[in-house]
Amino acid sequence: MIRDNLSVHLIARPHGEPNLENFSFVKSACPPVPPGGLIYETMFLSVDPYLRGRMNDVKSYVPPFQLGAPIESGFVGKVLESENEKFKSGDLVFGMGPWSHFTATDGKNLSRLPPEFPPSHWLGVLGMPGLTAFVGLFDIGQAKRDETVVVSAAAGAVGSLVVQLAKQTGCKVVGIAGGKAKCDYVKNDLRADFVIDYKNENVLKSLVERVPDGVDVYFDNVGGEILSAVLSHLKDHARISLCGMISEYNAKEPPPGPNLRPLLSKKASIRGFIVSEHWERRAAFVAEVAPRVMAGEITCREDVINGLENAPAALFRVLSGKNFGKQIVKVDAL
Amino acid sequence: MIRDNLSVHLIARPHGEPNLENFSFVKSACPPVPPGGLIYETMFLSVDPYLRGRMNDVKSYVPPFQLGAPIESGFVGKVLESENEKFKSGDLVFGMGPWSHFTATDGKNLSRLPPEFPPSHWLGVLGMPGLTAFVGLFDIGQAKRDETVVVSAAAGAVGSLVVQLAKQTGCKVVGIAGGKAKCDYVKNDLRADFVIDYKNENVLKSLVERVPDGVDVYFDNVGGEILSAVLSHLKDHARISLCGMISEYNAKEPPPGPNLRPLLSKKASIRGFIVSEHWERRAAFVAEVAPRVMAGEITCREDVINGLENAPAALFRVLSGKNFGKQIVKVDAL
Repeated sequence: MIRDNLSVHLIARPHGEPNLENFSFVKSACPPVPPGGLIYETMFLSVDPYLRGRMNDVKSYVPPFQLGAPIESGFVGKVLESENEKFKSGDLVFGMGPWSHFTATDGKNLSRLPPEFPPSHWLGVLGMPGLTAFVGLFDIGQAKRDETVVVSAAAGAVGSLVVQLAKQTGCKVVGIAGGKAKCDYVKNDLRADFVIDYKNENVLKSLVERVPDGVDVYFDNVGGEILSAVLSHLKDHARISLCGMISEYNAKEPPPGPNLRPLLSKKASIRGFIVSEHWERRAAFVAEVAPRVMAGEITCREDVINGLENAPAALFRVLSGKNFGKQIVKVDAL
Repeated sequence: MIRDNLSVHLIARPHGEPNLENFSFVKSACPPVPPGGLIYETMFLSVDPYLRGRMNDVKSYVPPFQLGAPIESGFVGKVLESENEKFKSGDLVFGMGPWSHFTATDGKNLSRLPPEFPPSHWLGVLGMPGLTAFVGLFDIGQAKRDETVVVSAAAGAVGSLVVQLAKQTGCKVVGIAGGKAKCDYVKNDLRADFVIDYKNENVLKSLVERVPDGVDVYFDNVGGEILSAVLSHLKDHARISLCGMISEYNAKEPPPGPNLRPLLSKKASIRGFIVSEHWERRAAFVAEVAPRVMAGEITCREDVINGLENAPAALFRVLSGKNFGKQIVKVDAL
């Protein structure tokens, strides 16, 4: 069977906000099945803020994307043809792969997915964002019953699970999000105790009003002014779990950070983490969270854009906070 | 016996740098021995950067000094008269007390000092600064053999012990200090592997040259630009032990802090601590460090100013980095 393939390549590194000129859409012939390997069709792509970092040519926790090569991200795909004994045609697979309709691989870094959940969940609530929420809240943040937990980007893929896990642990939860629709979702669907609309409120003032005793755990997805505000209202021995700094991913020069005096006066800590160092927690995470998703006790929201050709636009949405829920691209290959 | 007493009071809170107008020298009659208590004569006062914080009327880890009352700090004194069965005349005692020649107390918060060491050592290498170095380096910073440790204010009371403890643990040690005399001391007497003179060098550039692989543990006494520089040169999983921020204690408004992106990319942490929450480590600290001081394996330097009336000037020295070694006031009472 001969098919046309399409891939999205990085062709120029962005300065500040990325735009369509940083990408090209490259047509090619579909590759043959490699000996002992397989070909899969990409069904869903995960679009996450960290991809912006990989577009820069700097050393970071993941290597930069190469110019003239496809963007890569998490995906769910379906095996089309296989010479690999671990996979057969029709299997659902999960891994990190190129932004392409069709991909040839030896299959080493793929895992087969169980059929009980919508496939896209493995990119969101049960995937990397879900594990990020779990590790950041419990392992890094050490959140415990009756503590006050604040989470920014609370309507996002990671934040929405942080809110729900913290609530189900018996914490008092403040979700910070931008705009009425997201705030309503955080309050009504995710059941945060309080919500702060950072686009329409003074975050520090609202935080002091809603949790006057201060914050035990801050799960930070954004950095910037919201981090400064929360730092001004910590309890003794507070822990800040630094998961992302989306507020400055597009910055050309690193902006100054918050005054750190509260870390001293409150004997508090900030710790950065990256979920890829915590895969050993994945089994515990899935065992704990998947049944609750199945039972409807944990809700998740996906923001799906159709078409591989719209993947860059999906990334722009994520970087500007326009997505509402886990950003996914549904790839229509055939 | 009737004696004149002298005390140093805080009479006005400073804005920015304190000066002599914030203090008054108050004469009074020496108090009588309280029932079941004692009177001691102050021999040495400890002068530390944190005192500046207590001069402000803000909630912090220690309550503010009261206007019209004496400044208080660590001291070593000699019991003059006692009705307390735990202490007798001539005993050396240690505690927190007022900046006064003579003090009447119930004796509850005093401890008796063993006679083997110079009394002033209990305010420095074997006292609060020593325990601060020990806790901050090992408990907070988790420094281990073969790691690279950087310490700022390396010639100071805390920093000088950090350098020596880290060296004796098998770490590679970089001491940061200001000026040739202090840097020579850090290199030749404390035996740091490298020294950086922040007054005459670009800290980041020198750090990259001397320890190109980066920093595992930063023991930070100063905050500000030096913290920013070290943050730019961390190894993966680095720990920053935040002990003090003397660079901004006199600031009228909290200045912005360092960009925190490296915490994310290096999966690193910053943790503030205050030694008063770690007294339970004092026995282990004294057991480990006192014999080494006795054996001459650990050196310490004291910067002694004579006369209670010069105690405010001693504080100004500490806040401007002019002291060289643990700042102590030798009180001549009689």
